[in-house]
Amino acid sequence: MNFCSQCGAHVTYRIPEGDNLARAVCAACNTVHYENPKIIVGCIPDWEGQVLLCRRAIEPRSGLWTVPAGFMENGETTEQGARRETLEEANARVDELALFSLYNLPHVNQIYLLFRGRLLDRDFSAGSETLETSLFSEGEVPWDEIAFATVRNTLRYYFSDLQRGSFGFHMGTVEPMRGR
Amino acid sequence: MNFCSQCGAHVTYRIPEGDNLARAVCAACNTVHYENPKIIVGCIPDWEGQVLLCRRAIEPRSGLWTVPAGFMENGETTEQGARRETLEEANARVDELALFSLYNLPHVNQIYLLFRGRLLDRDFSAGSETLETSLFSEGEVPWDEIAFATVRNTLRYYFSDLQRGSFGFHMGTVEPMRGR
Repeated sequence: MNFCSQCGAHVTYRIPEGDNLARAVCAACNTVHYENPKIIVGCIPDWEGQVLLCRRAIEPRSGLWTVPAGFMENGETTEQGARRETLEEANARVDELALFSLYNLPHVNQIYLLFRGRLLDRDFSAGSETLETSLFSEGEVPWDEIAFATVRNTLRYYFSDLQRGSFGFHMGTVEPMRGR
Repeated sequence: MNFCSQCGAHVTYRIPEGDNLARAVCAACNTVHYENPKIIVGCIPDWEGQVLLCRRAIEPRSGLWTVPAGFMENGETTEQGARRETLEEANARVDELALFSLYNLPHVNQIYLLFRGRLLDRDFSAGSETLETSLFSEGEVPWDEIAFATVRNTLRYYFSDLQRGSFGFHMGTVEPMRGR
């Protein structure tokens, strides 16, 4: 951030009075611009034990597979966001949503909230950010071509819980491989 | 948002190509400025069935009671954020954190993620944004002086789960009273 989004003057990074972290502060109007983590909401659409995956048409990880998911928008609930992404990316409708996993990605300032849900019918297709959509049983999932660790881990938990007949809620943190 | 935080030119609100919602777009450098919900993280610190509450020294709802909670920061996990807020607002240390509730507040573009946790000791005190801190059993909680519906609901669930000896995970949506 270089300029104040309120008045257009330059910002400087400094610790405001009463705070303990450096923020972008406007030199002219003194507005403090906070930057906070973003939420990615998504869904594991289930059809009789198969999950609906989308092959990504956009970067990052274009060509790899994921669940329908994207940035949560202002004015919606987490569940509404998960339904919206499922509709936008896979033209699919889900119900009986339940929160299934939460992943922290502190290195990119994101948290993932992934729901499980029941696919209403087999009427689905690729949205504009998707190359193709398909249903996969556990053995059919292209495990080496899953776009994100958050999604791969969540799908592993999903099939494990499905097999034992009881769904839990799973939390974790994904950090980059390098530097560990 | 009036000005581009990248280049300082005016922004206009329009739907970018390939999008379906109006965004602040820079007329000069074409940067799209997304605005997304913010996460509030907090903790219910438990000491042998009593919960640690804070009386707020700041607006909104100054003078009313809440659990330690605040905006999640970049670079931290949800759990780290909950611990940090507990330390900042109540000078208190917790462990054995488990996610207890998620509340959507779509009218103010926020989600609350509240953990439960075990208070390590009775060495706690008011932080700079807190007037006083105190432990409360269910009967002692000032139910009519709780600052936020999210916190009141979460505390009700907490004592209910405590009594039955098993903690669940609770989700809900809080909307403003007016207009319903």
